[in-house]
Amino acid sequence: MNTVELIAKKRDGGCLADDEIIYLVNQFTKGKIPDYQFSSLLMAIFLKGMKTEETAALTKAMLNSGIVVDLSSIKGAKVDKHSTGGVGDKTSLILAPIVAAAGVNVPMISGRGLGHTGGTLDKLETIPGFKTNLNLSQYKSVIKKCGAVLIGQTSKIAPADKLIYSLRDVTATVESIPLITGSIMSKKLAEGIDGLVLDVKTGSGAFMREMKDARALAQSLINTAKAFNKKVLAMITDMNQPLGNYIGNWLEVYESVKVLQGEKVEDLVTVSLNLSGAMIYLGGKVKSIEEGIEISEKMISSGKAFDKFLEISKLQGGDNSYLTDLNKFPKSKYTKKIYADRSGYLKSIDNYKVGMASLELGAGRKTLVDKIDPKAGIIFYPKIGTYVKNGDVIAELLTDKKGSLDLAKSSVLNSLTFSKTKVRKVKLIKEIIT
Amino acid sequence: MNTVELIAKKRDGGCLADDEIIYLVNQFTKGKIPDYQFSSLLMAIFLKGMKTEETAALTKAMLNSGIVVDLSSIKGAKVDKHSTGGVGDKTSLILAPIVAAAGVNVPMISGRGLGHTGGTLDKLETIPGFKTNLNLSQYKSVIKKCGAVLIGQTSKIAPADKLIYSLRDVTATVESIPLITGSIMSKKLAEGIDGLVLDVKTGSGAFMREMKDARALAQSLINTAKAFNKKVLAMITDMNQPLGNYIGNWLEVYESVKVLQGEKVEDLVTVSLNLSGAMIYLGGKVKSIEEGIEISEKMISSGKAFDKFLEISKLQGGDNSYLTDLNKFPKSKYTKKIYADRSGYLKSIDNYKVGMASLELGAGRKTLVDKIDPKAGIIFYPKIGTYVKNGDVIAELLTDKKGSLDLAKSSVLNSLTFSKTKVRKVKLIKEIIT
Repeated sequence: MNTVELIAKKRDGGCLADDEIIYLVNQFTKGKIPDYQFSSLLMAIFLKGMKTEETAALTKAMLNSGIVVDLSSIKGAKVDKHSTGGVGDKTSLILAPIVAAAGVNVPMISGRGLGHTGGTLDKLETIPGFKTNLNLSQYKSVIKKCGAVLIGQTSKIAPADKLIYSLRDVTATVESIPLITGSIMSKKLAEGIDGLVLDVKTGSGAFMREMKDARALAQSLINTAKAFNKKVLAMITDMNQPLGNYIGNWLEVYESVKVLQGEKVEDLVTVSLNLSGAMIYLGGKVKSIEEGIEISEKMISSGKAFDKFLEISKLQGGDNSYLTDLNKFPKSKYTKKIYADRSGYLKSIDNYKVGMASLELGAGRKTLVDKIDPKAGIIFYPKIGTYVKNGDVIAELLTDKKGSLDLAKSSVLNSLTFSKTKVRKVKLIKEIIT
Repeated sequence: MNTVELIAKKRDGGCLADDEIIYLVNQFTKGKIPDYQFSSLLMAIFLKGMKTEETAALTKAMLNSGIVVDLSSIKGAKVDKHSTGGVGDKTSLILAPIVAAAGVNVPMISGRGLGHTGGTLDKLETIPGFKTNLNLSQYKSVIKKCGAVLIGQTSKIAPADKLIYSLRDVTATVESIPLITGSIMSKKLAEGIDGLVLDVKTGSGAFMREMKDARALAQSLINTAKAFNKKVLAMITDMNQPLGNYIGNWLEVYESVKVLQGEKVEDLVTVSLNLSGAMIYLGGKVKSIEEGIEISEKMISSGKAFDKFLEISKLQGGDNSYLTDLNKFPKSKYTKKIYADRSGYLKSIDNYKVGMASLELGAGRKTLVDKIDPKAGIIFYPKIGTYVKNGDVIAELLTDKKGSLDLAKSSVLNSLTFSKTKVRKVKLIKEIIT
């Protein structure tokens, strides 16, 4: 096959055949197609798109660049969740133990935080001793013992994705629905799952700010999952404000434990339980998402979900004394309260700015090699629609970098708009696509 | 400036500012923007286009990556011609001496043949001793002495073009009007010209097969030349059949000499004299292209044009005994006549196939490092509209590679279609754009 002719075919809006896509991905992964050819192909894909069957072939080629884990020796359904990420999005930590406690296996391979969003691995690793770099036999062993496991991507899973993503990142080809789909699905399909719940976020703190883009991505992910005969559904959920009140790595573990212990953090609980309910439903334990939500609530109220979290943590090396005594964890050197400078109904939050403020305080990374401060972050109180009085505490900033406080403070304050008239609360679950 | 953001701007259909284009070209030329970023930019330019002012800025940045020759010390107008290339297109060899004999300087920097088309340098170099690799002071000296010079691109002229072209060639980004414009015009503007006549070819043997594409390229080239205050006009000329009857390197020198000596090769003479007439007109010697054509005819009939050709050749080291005695040149080992296998009016020629057949016989290159055989090529007789009888000689093949004869023969025969009813002759000069 001729690489230049294949690039030209996509450039001219043609549909690449399965074997052509396999050739391109394989030769690139082997280093036989140079970066400069693949990046021109990526730009052509970005601008001309891919049909459902092309996206499936791309995903398959990326998936088959590495190992596909075989979990058939483990009894019961295996269902994972993928979120497109957001500010304060800690649902994985809550739903994994709930779903496992309900008898559905959760084999979860997650990522790290980058830019304004956090990552599950970074959060879990704040639990002293907790290891996310398990190899694939340890991965299988943990899930066999307790029904859930949360690890990071190994070099054996979809190595093509790592190479392609690095190139997309520096060639302005990140925000492409077929390329995002291939990247997400190649990793998820490698986990050995039967079903997948997708949490596609939309709003000011999401990658897909617009509803129509979120919907298009959700549909592309669903189409691809179905091409691999996986059970799948997608929820489009709100990311116009932080999910829950805690943003930061240990802070999000803290809030997740509180929720698992029964604390009613309204938006966070609603989104987490809708997702866990959907996972229990896809796992075949119940006949509807609603029934799955009811079971999820029981898993929390009975204490089984929190016990499961402790069990997972212990199997992955975590020191559970930090989870049973949340105050044991070290505190940031500096804290600063931010007070409202006017009164009114909270109308909107530029949630991207809130995420970036948390990054500046030490909770995030600008590049993948940056180190994060596990303690740093923001506790952010009001929700859209709340009446805020001049002088009310809006947020607390936590950091070891004193110099970051002023910038973070003005970022948070500048992210808010207020209204004199009543403002409706946001709809948390905007759409369910099956 | 941030390279990824600039790529994204073009990707999203934005207009790049002059300083942004200068940054991109300069940093790429210095090796500070890697190939993989520049190729994704090239694909974005290919698919989103460039406005006139962007194309001018691109051309300027590429031009200023090297030396711009100053010919102000040479008296009189300096006018060049650029052709987009075709099969049997040898007009440079004919018009340069005509125009110089008429008192307008012709500073010409040409290219080599690639694919189905030939190159002026390869043709001239078949004259034993003829040097095309003059340096820029020799270039000035020859034009000062005889009013014309024909050399190849030096590394000092538009080095950015060489780098960008190499990358376009392997990333399916060649056929882009702004990129073609930048490539052509950066080199032509570096010659030190006052005026430029463009020969944009269209038809089965041209790069721009469709009239609308040829017209768009002509307009882009004109717009860019005008942005640099150059006198300019474009002719869209036919390339649905070989121009003249001789295709190949020495074969084209041979036919050019014949024309300069007065032989009436109808289509070749018509196109050459329209172009030379336009150059004499742009050079300010006459008030119309028609008057320029009359002068061109006189330059041939008086012998002044052929004398000028000998003068140029001598100054560039050529052994003129080969030009005054055309039979002195060595002959190919093998020749084969191709006979018509049916009767009818010649309706169409796939001129690309004829060009590729000539390449197979040894006259062309598949890649820039291939060597060419100066003797090889095709003498192709009938023109579209001619009545051909079964058994008439259609063409003669000349080669040292016996094994190439059969393939070339079937290529040439397969390139032809015939009609039982009369077929109109092609219009040679399809449009003049000023």
